[in-house]
Amino acid sequence: MRDFDRDPAINGILVQLPLPTQVNELDLLNCISPEKDVDGLHPFNIGSKRFLINSLRLGLAMKKRTPHFTSCTPLGVLKLIQSVCPNLEGKKVTVCGRSNIVGMPLALLLNKHNATVSLCHTRTSNIKDHLKDADIVVTAAGSPRFFKGDWFKPGSIAIDVGINELIVPDADPNTKRKIVGDIEYEKAIERCSFITPVPGGVGPMTITMLMSNIVDSWEKANF
Amino acid sequence: MRDFDRDPAINGILVQLPLPTQVNELDLLNCISPEKDVDGLHPFNIGSKRFLINSLRLGLAMKKRTPHFTSCTPLGVLKLIQSVCPNLEGKKVTVCGRSNIVGMPLALLLNKHNATVSLCHTRTSNIKDHLKDADIVVTAAGSPRFFKGDWFKPGSIAIDVGINELIVPDADPNTKRKIVGDIEYEKAIERCSFITPVPGGVGPMTITMLMSNIVDSWEKANF
Repeated sequence: MRDFDRDPAINGILVQLPLPTQVNELDLLNCISPEKDVDGLHPFNIGSKRFLINSLRLGLAMKKRTPHFTSCTPLGVLKLIQSVCPNLEGKKVTVCGRSNIVGMPLALLLNKHNATVSLCHTRTSNIKDHLKDADIVVTAAGSPRFFKGDWFKPGSIAIDVGINELIVPDADPNTKRKIVGDIEYEKAIERCSFITPVPGGVGPMTITMLMSNIVDSWEKANF
Repeated sequence: MRDFDRDPAINGILVQLPLPTQVNELDLLNCISPEKDVDGLHPFNIGSKRFLINSLRLGLAMKKRTPHFTSCTPLGVLKLIQSVCPNLEGKKVTVCGRSNIVGMPLALLLNKHNATVSLCHTRTSNIKDHLKDADIVVTAAGSPRFFKGDWFKPGSIAIDVGINELIVPDADPNTKRKIVGDIEYEKAIERCSFITPVPGGVGPMTITMLMSNIVDSWEKANF
């Protein structure tokens, strides 16, 4: 790993977790220099020293600071929103979920883009009240089909980050399981002007942003 | 300063800024070890390396992290709220202002206490819409008497962090100036169940929290 990190021909390193038990995760991750950590705020960073380093570089909570690499999922969500709503200024955005990897960094990122952000979570009461006036709703709660279609403001934009496995009648006959999002998609699509499906919405964007971070890393190293 | 920092009889160091021009502010501040920086997230930290160090210690944006010292003003605001509303869970809180020293760290602190926080700022449109349902409103906008009394929900709690100098007819005859908050106090007091005055509200709490941080520092050093 240290050899990869030193190799100028390599511009980005991502460790696909989990690792075999004989490998120390943190030791391995610490071999990656910040300039090559294209994965940004990945789950493996939570609570670890690396997470602190990432937060420091991200600087999302601070004015006048630009992130080194922005974590892939929040960045993908931002790009999805901007594709249909280029200017977030004056928009009311409700983010549901305050995880270290999606909800919290996304709320900070959207604030940096001048949205007015409400951050909801499991302890929020009457969560639907926070959706009814929201121009944009991002669900990253991990609750299958929890957000009902009629909670959304007509014409709003809905981004569903949730990936939940459900055992349902119309599931894949081999696995008996189906992947669903946090939103009751079939009803929400009738009210929202734009909505992302699960699977096939945020997921591919996360991967695309990873590619984008790698290209950025190459450019930083070579120009 | 280094001698003070090394002296075990000294538990907290605060540098009263601004300094005379011949003294390098950052060099001096860097002599204070984190364990003695009872001032937390003070204005002088904005954008400086120390601010990053503080943010790192604060860890306000991260789950499972407890701040080393919480910055005095946000902590004072939290204590004021808790004095009349001990449990923030399920409460809708609107924070107006997203500065590095008050609004942003306060929003993160209140989120940590399970409030549902909306963070408003100069680019928010129709800011009064964000007040009408809020159980608690904190204004840290620096806009004299901008928040009108009838914008507040009846029975809500209002904390006014603003300190603005105004030239007004009933001002001190010597200075012709008067200190006012961000809230139209005389009207808001009729609607809110609790409201802090300016001056004499948040200001003394900030000083008290500084004292509290010093005592904590002593306890950490001696037990």
